[in-house]
Amino acid sequence: MSFQNRQWFYVKRPDARVGDEHYELRESELDGTLAANEVIIRARIISVDPYIRIQQHERNTYDVPHPLGIVQRAGAVGEVVASNSPLFKEGDWVSAYSGWQLYAKCHHSELTKLDPAAAPVSTALGVLGMPGRTAWFGLTEAGKPRPGDTLVVSGAAGAVGSLVAQFGKRAGCRVIGIAGGAAKCAFLTDTLKLDGAVDYRAHPTVEGLRAAIEQATGGVDIYFDNVGGMVTDAVIPLIKLRARIIICGAIAQYDGGLDTPDLAPRFLQHMLFKRATIQGILARDFTSRMDEMVKTVAPWVKSGEIVSQETYVDGFDQLPAALNSLFEGKNLGKLLVRV
Amino acid sequence: MSFQNRQWFYVKRPDARVGDEHYELRESELDGTLAANEVIIRARIISVDPYIRIQQHERNTYDVPHPLGIVQRAGAVGEVVASNSPLFKEGDWVSAYSGWQLYAKCHHSELTKLDPAAAPVSTALGVLGMPGRTAWFGLTEAGKPRPGDTLVVSGAAGAVGSLVAQFGKRAGCRVIGIAGGAAKCAFLTDTLKLDGAVDYRAHPTVEGLRAAIEQATGGVDIYFDNVGGMVTDAVIPLIKLRARIIICGAIAQYDGGLDTPDLAPRFLQHMLFKRATIQGILARDFTSRMDEMVKTVAPWVKSGEIVSQETYVDGFDQLPAALNSLFEGKNLGKLLVRV
Repeated sequence: MSFQNRQWFYVKRPDARVGDEHYELRESELDGTLAANEVIIRARIISVDPYIRIQQHERNTYDVPHPLGIVQRAGAVGEVVASNSPLFKEGDWVSAYSGWQLYAKCHHSELTKLDPAAAPVSTALGVLGMPGRTAWFGLTEAGKPRPGDTLVVSGAAGAVGSLVAQFGKRAGCRVIGIAGGAAKCAFLTDTLKLDGAVDYRAHPTVEGLRAAIEQATGGVDIYFDNVGGMVTDAVIPLIKLRARIIICGAIAQYDGGLDTPDLAPRFLQHMLFKRATIQGILARDFTSRMDEMVKTVAPWVKSGEIVSQETYVDGFDQLPAALNSLFEGKNLGKLLVRV
Repeated sequence: MSFQNRQWFYVKRPDARVGDEHYELRESELDGTLAANEVIIRARIISVDPYIRIQQHERNTYDVPHPLGIVQRAGAVGEVVASNSPLFKEGDWVSAYSGWQLYAKCHHSELTKLDPAAAPVSTALGVLGMPGRTAWFGLTEAGKPRPGDTLVVSGAAGAVGSLVAQFGKRAGCRVIGIAGGAAKCAFLTDTLKLDGAVDYRAHPTVEGLRAAIEQATGGVDIYFDNVGGMVTDAVIPLIKLRARIIICGAIAQYDGGLDTPDLAPRFLQHMLFKRATIQGILARDFTSRMDEMVKTVAPWVKSGEIVSQETYVDGFDQLPAALNSLFEGKNLGKLLVRV
């Protein structure tokens, strides 16, 4: 038995925005012969995440660069289609870090079994997966939210931001989301029930944006930052005494700005004046505590108390374009590709 | 009885470097009549500190701006010359926040009695005073030094930096100091016995300075920052995993750069990649733990295990110029004015 595979190979490092030219779509036969404890999965949903863009940089970032000439690494959810493992049988749903390919042969230790009755399997790539873990521990561990704190979230309509904002509400914070465009801001206030939303696109200057955020917040106790750039320039001077700033992403800089950072006003004096902290966090820092997050958050997902918003793109061919679209702000919540 | 007083009044906010024009020297008679528990002290040593320059800004920084038209606030050490308090008698040495004036009438609760036999009284303005507290708790609480960590200190020949560097050595760190000029660097390695020193004046570009610091350190676990500006631009990309950056000062920005910050390369991505922290600290955060610091550090001062370097300027008239000279890097260790 064999499987007709399709794979996106990462073949060229982007200088700026990622596009089709940085990938090659290849077709091949995947031999179905299985060694002991091997499993073949057929991906059904593949993840595109901003961190992918970081790994494409030529230099070390939080890890060595993603190698050229291999399948693009990424998280996926799929079905077992062949198994030589006592732990998995055909038809089981699993999540795996199997990358941008339709079929993958995996050792069973690489797979996490999913229960479709407990939660939609797609949540393993979102609220009950890496983005959820990032949001939960980033907010609770680094942000240390207290009832009454004012929490500002940038990229608040995104995969991580939309969860941070909701977790913040549950912790008793007053939550103001920053997002691009009126539709996203309406999502923040109407669907996520945040206390306010600021459309950064409506404020083209840092000073104007800062004034809008100041008006909406009156000062910031916690800033959960997914975007960096001008939005962060606007927020930092608004921090209050002992504010906590969590650096979770810098999406504004991923298109070249990591190698050649642009210039921004110095701000460390505000850290001094307010005795504030900045902490960088990554999902991997909390991998060992995944069970703790799932135990807490899964019941909220099941009961509908947490909105786990998803945006779908259809088609394996669309993976590079879908990754690209993250940087155009087109997704609401977690962006997923159905394959 | 009365006392012929001399006082420096703060009368004009500086735009850039502070100078004589921002102060007025006034003479007056201080009436020696004392209410219950009042004491008159004659200052002998008056402190000039970089924070004074922060308080002169028009806007709130870590506090409301220093008012115009009053005596410049500052720490001082002096002798009791008249007392209506059961706690103090003539000839007692005390420290007080009595400002730039020869005589001050104080409520006894404002005074701390000093024991000249235990340590030189000047140390109450340095290693056993505010700068010592800043250095001790800034390093131990925010820096969390571990044996083998590489600690980089900017402004390492200054009042706080020279103490941080020595406390770091005692904690088992490898300590590299950054200072301006060959003489200061020799002080760091020869007198303070640091593991290395980098003369930032010998490296006019950020890239060159960074290369020198990288060569001296191989990467930075703790960065204790007293200066900000280009030195900090050079250090931050060299941080290692889970680095701790302590913002204690930004002396490079105090001459106007707080109100109109200059531009520098964005760096928050490094915080993300390395899951590092930045924490702003001020001496006042640890005032309640002063006894803890003194108990630990005073024996080291007495035994000579800690070098408490001081630079003296003579003459009450010299106070504004002495403050100014802090920003020209002329002092080694704590700068004090004998009056």
